[in-house]
Amino acid sequence: MKRFERLEGLIAAPFTPMHEYGSLNLDIIPDYYKLLKRNKVIGAFINGSTGEGVSQTGEEKKQVIQAWSEATKGDSEFKVINLVGGTSLAESVEMASFSEEMGLFGIAYTSPYYFKPATARVLADCCTQVAAAAPNIAFYYYHIPVLTGCNVTMLDLLNTVNGSIPNFAGIKYTHEDFMDFLSCIYQEGGRYDMLWGRDENMLSALALGSFGAVGSTFNYAAPLYLDMIEAFKRGELLKARDLQKRSIDIIRLLGKYGGITVGKAYMKLIGLDCGKFRLPLQNMSPEQYESFSKDVAAIGFDELRSV
Amino acid sequence: MKRFERLEGLIAAPFTPMHEYGSLNLDIIPDYYKLLKRNKVIGAFINGSTGEGVSQTGEEKKQVIQAWSEATKGDSEFKVINLVGGTSLAESVEMASFSEEMGLFGIAYTSPYYFKPATARVLADCCTQVAAAAPNIAFYYYHIPVLTGCNVTMLDLLNTVNGSIPNFAGIKYTHEDFMDFLSCIYQEGGRYDMLWGRDENMLSALALGSFGAVGSTFNYAAPLYLDMIEAFKRGELLKARDLQKRSIDIIRLLGKYGGITVGKAYMKLIGLDCGKFRLPLQNMSPEQYESFSKDVAAIGFDELRSV
Amino acid sequence: MKRFERLEGLIAAPFTPMHEYGSLNLDIIPDYYKLLKRNKVIGAFINGSTGEGVSQTGEEKKQVIQAWSEATKGDSEFKVINLVGGTSLAESVEMASFSEEMGLFGIAYTSPYYFKPATARVLADCCTQVAAAAPNIAFYYYHIPVLTGCNVTMLDLLNTVNGSIPNFAGIKYTHEDFMDFLSCIYQEGGRYDMLWGRDENMLSALALGSFGAVGSTFNYAAPLYLDMIEAFKRGELLKARDLQKRSIDIIRLLGKYGGITVGKAYMKLIGLDCGKFRLPLQNMSPEQYESFSKDVAAIGFDELRSV
Amino acid sequence: MKRFERLEGLIAAPFTPMHEYGSLNLDIIPDYYKLLKRNKVIGAFINGSTGEGVSQTGEEKKQVIQAWSEATKGDSEFKVINLVGGTSLAESVEMASFSEEMGLFGIAYTSPYYFKPATARVLADCCTQVAAAAPNIAFYYYHIPVLTGCNVTMLDLLNTVNGSIPNFAGIKYTHEDFMDFLSCIYQEGGRYDMLWGRDENMLSALALGSFGAVGSTFNYAAPLYLDMIEAFKRGELLKARDLQKRSIDIIRLLGKYGGITVGKAYMKLIGLDCGKFRLPLQNMSPEQYESFSKDVAAIGFDELRSV
Repeated sequence: MKRFERLEGLIAAPFTPMHEYGSLNLDIIPDYYKLLKRNKVIGAFINGSTGEGVSQTGEEKKQVIQAWSEATKGDSEFKVINLVGGTSLAESVEMASFSEEMGLFGIAYTSPYYFKPATARVLADCCTQVAAAAPNIAFYYYHIPVLTGCNVTMLDLLNTVNGSIPNFAGIKYTHEDFMDFLSCIYQEGGRYDMLWGRDENMLSALALGSFGAVGSTFNYAAPLYLDMIEAFKRGELLKARDLQKRSIDIIRLLGKYGGITVGKAYMKLIGLDCGKFRLPLQNMSPEQYESFSKDVAAIGFDELRSV
Repeated sequence: MKRFERLEGLIAAPFTPMHEYGSLNLDIIPDYYKLLKRNKVIGAFINGSTGEGVSQTGEEKKQVIQAWSEATKGDSEFKVINLVGGTSLAESVEMASFSEEMGLFGIAYTSPYYFKPATARVLADCCTQVAAAAPNIAFYYYHIPVLTGCNVTMLDLLNTVNGSIPNFAGIKYTHEDFMDFLSCIYQEGGRYDMLWGRDENMLSALALGSFGAVGSTFNYAAPLYLDMIEAFKRGELLKARDLQKRSIDIIRLLGKYGGITVGKAYMKLIGLDCGKFRLPLQNMSPEQYESFSKDVAAIGFDELRSV
Repeated sequence: MKRFERLEGLIAAPFTPMHEYGSLNLDIIPDYYKLLKRNKVIGAFINGSTGEGVSQTGEEKKQVIQAWSEATKGDSEFKVINLVGGTSLAESVEMASFSEEMGLFGIAYTSPYYFKPATARVLADCCTQVAAAAPNIAFYYYHIPVLTGCNVTMLDLLNTVNGSIPNFAGIKYTHEDFMDFLSCIYQEGGRYDMLWGRDENMLSALALGSFGAVGSTFNYAAPLYLDMIEAFKRGELLKARDLQKRSIDIIRLLGKYGGITVGKAYMKLIGLDCGKFRLPLQNMSPEQYESFSKDVAAIGFDELRSV
Repeated sequence: MKRFERLEGLIAAPFTPMHEYGSLNLDIIPDYYKLLKRNKVIGAFINGSTGEGVSQTGEEKKQVIQAWSEATKGDSEFKVINLVGGTSLAESVEMASFSEEMGLFGIAYTSPYYFKPATARVLADCCTQVAAAAPNIAFYYYHIPVLTGCNVTMLDLLNTVNGSIPNFAGIKYTHEDFMDFLSCIYQEGGRYDMLWGRDENMLSALALGSFGAVGSTFNYAAPLYLDMIEAFKRGELLKARDLQKRSIDIIRLLGKYGGITVGKAYMKLIGLDCGKFRLPLQNMSPEQYESFSKDVAAIGFDELRSV
């Protein structure tokens, strides 16, 4: 059984920067990395949901990996994890192998989402093949049933894997089943790194002892979350709640203006233009952007944003 | 706007005691009340999901109300709240009025579950009529979308009600949407009493400042939860987590042996035989009960149970 | 095993007539009955979804039963079936017994919809108790999973019942699972009366040999469906399709203007004012009604409506 | 607006043949083609759900296209349609272009299934880009919401497209919404080719005038369906129903033994060994296969199978 460094702190799930007509804009990734560092973010979860991995070609995903690998070279404190999920196991395997070759800290894998694994056994078999293609780096399972439609619980997955995947380091948990989440924290003496993936509920995960998190709003509002973690650690719960409430104010605007794509609008506001999302996601209209900008001012985003 | 006492502590959702062939066994309710008092439970949420209100006739529900009213007479510290929900508004209204007449502390109402309200406006209109039928006692909305199929968020409901229901005291929140839950806590300066309804996740709700809870496992494992609350308040998070994990061990056996009906098996174990659940719920077979008893011993239930 | 008359033709699911402020308006039921007869409808499925049985009190449902019983007395050709479903088995049993006492042709029962039966066995046990309370009249199961949330297939139910309920006459099938539907038609040599419950897809059910149907649009557009059945029987498929398409035009306006409540607006148009639906359903605003009236003209409703 | 030949008859969705350890076995595709021809199947829908397109790499899908293109060269009566769906629009576009280059009859495209289009507008925009990459061949939308999770109705899609995609030939409709299906048949004077995709309900689609179908069971039981169509056309409905019932007997064994993968077991029975399905799908165990073989004999598969 390998032991990987336990991740404590904020790991951003970066947006994939695009030019105006939708091609990759990799030139700004060094700046993106510096922004995250400046804001004490400790890693990047690339090609994930926020990074639109599924909307890219295999070739593009490799370019993104390469760009992050180069931008972060020499900074072993900064962990880059690449999502290799997809519906073709062979493609996931190839991407896993490439991720290790590029010197990333780890890979993540999510359930196939067209045909869904019917049992924990099948899902574990998929994980086994992918993890084996990057045997020297950390493997995380990415649990996001609302998008994959795979409803295997993580406790069932861990019980089925049962230590048979040496580099299985943990789970990025993007779901509200706190009972399953806490059960995984207690699994096998606490050996799994359970990374919380719902920024709007982070305080509830902190209470369960989860101090590592992967999220999209850490791209543009990292200080808020670091303050929340500090407040929680000092026992200042009222302050922590206030900060969680302000995080919710930020996230509520995502719902109001069309979902995940609103994140790139926040990025524009803080000065790192990542372009737009690709189809099948919808970007705000100019009118919506104007209204959004006003709402952003009303919630006091300037006090909380990344700098 | 009326002000009702804020509920801090454990409110049990009692099982409705039945004789062997399924008729009500109201004679043991005084003992039930004493059991809860002995275990520092501060109230009873009767005729709810755990109490099989939906499986009883209107007449039976009135008998249950009456029995709890009599058993708790003179104990103003102990709050009895009766669920008046149903699909017929007129029947809910009648039951609300009867609850006030019987001197209960409050009523709860849940969304109609055959036809589901399409908007927060419709749900608020239903609440208005029911709350008005018991104007001098506390009104709680009971949010349990997994059973009602009504997906109106509670923030939308509160925004729509907007103070227009004078005795709207709070919400029994049985759902994992912590973002919505925290938003409701912050609503209108914190005027609503937000009672947590998922025992297996209580620690995550404590972190958000919710110190009142309504649950079924408080019937037979109240000391565990009181210890958890105390540990949390003292900042002993490791201990609180361990206790939450042990609560999950108890609750996992519900899933393993058939769900909500397993609760009556726990009651039998602690010495208050409440009989069985009615159709359409399924009770354990004798073989299952035997296996369940072994599992119960294995999780150390005896150290945690109500006494 | 009892044999009941097989139902061929249209059975309307009547609206429950209401006065302006929502009380029952039973005086017009004799006229309602005459309207159905005039349009060659062969029966009435009362207190169903269309009849808002769930939104009435038990007492009101009995009054509705009595009114239909009296209005149709002496007309053995006209079959009245009363839905006795609910979440309390005891109340369903009582209503079943009352239905038989009032001389109705049959009863229907649907799955409990708060707690949902987990297996076909449990659902069959519920059916057994209810059917036994009206042993001399026909028992139909009413399959409408979109409202009850009970996903037991009807083939599983029939296999589980396996002839053990002597008065189990058939199923009102309101769901699009034609594979399950045809399987039930073939069950036990075709002994079950399979009544189709989705007016918008009746032609697809006719092809499978189902010539009895229960629906809400037969209240106000019976001639259209009788023409469709005749055309189908004569092998005039193009004509049958055109009529099904026109039925869809009518039904699409239900979706456009708020669902099931739009039916009472159609009734008003044909001259039998049944008032409004109760909460939690929403009725059209006056502005919507105006717009609806124009749409109704545009689809040529006058040529197809009941007279 | 281009006019493409209307497809009347059976189009099989072929399995992708695999060697024992999961690599493609393209050598048997000429035999596969001959089998289909022998059984009067008029086309092949390749790389679809049955063909496990999602479980293949891009390169593999191209090899499958090429193999079918070569095997069917010179047979303009036999239509090959390639599913180009995926989550990356750029990859779908590339595959569309390759399909045209290889001389296929048409392409099909299904909704992205990780991020789901939120509106008909977005879905139409995706279709526009893909169809434009293969402008001279027929474009079909493949509607299979149970797998994609995209719930845009086809009537909404057609209304939104509104004739703006010149090669939009029709829809492969794999869903039970017959109201939507018939509405699409009537759309724009019937210009769209509506191909039915649920073999177990084909008779209900025939009644609506749909004489083209795409299905997986046509691979191994084509004669049954051709007989059904003939019987229906001659007005022999009892016979058509009996055949549909027998088709259901065949399909019920899919459900019993694990779903779509059972199809390859049927192929083995008729003598064309296509190997196994890839992960995340599960294949039968040897014990299951033995039990399956007995069930197959019991339903009289030998009388109905492809030869």
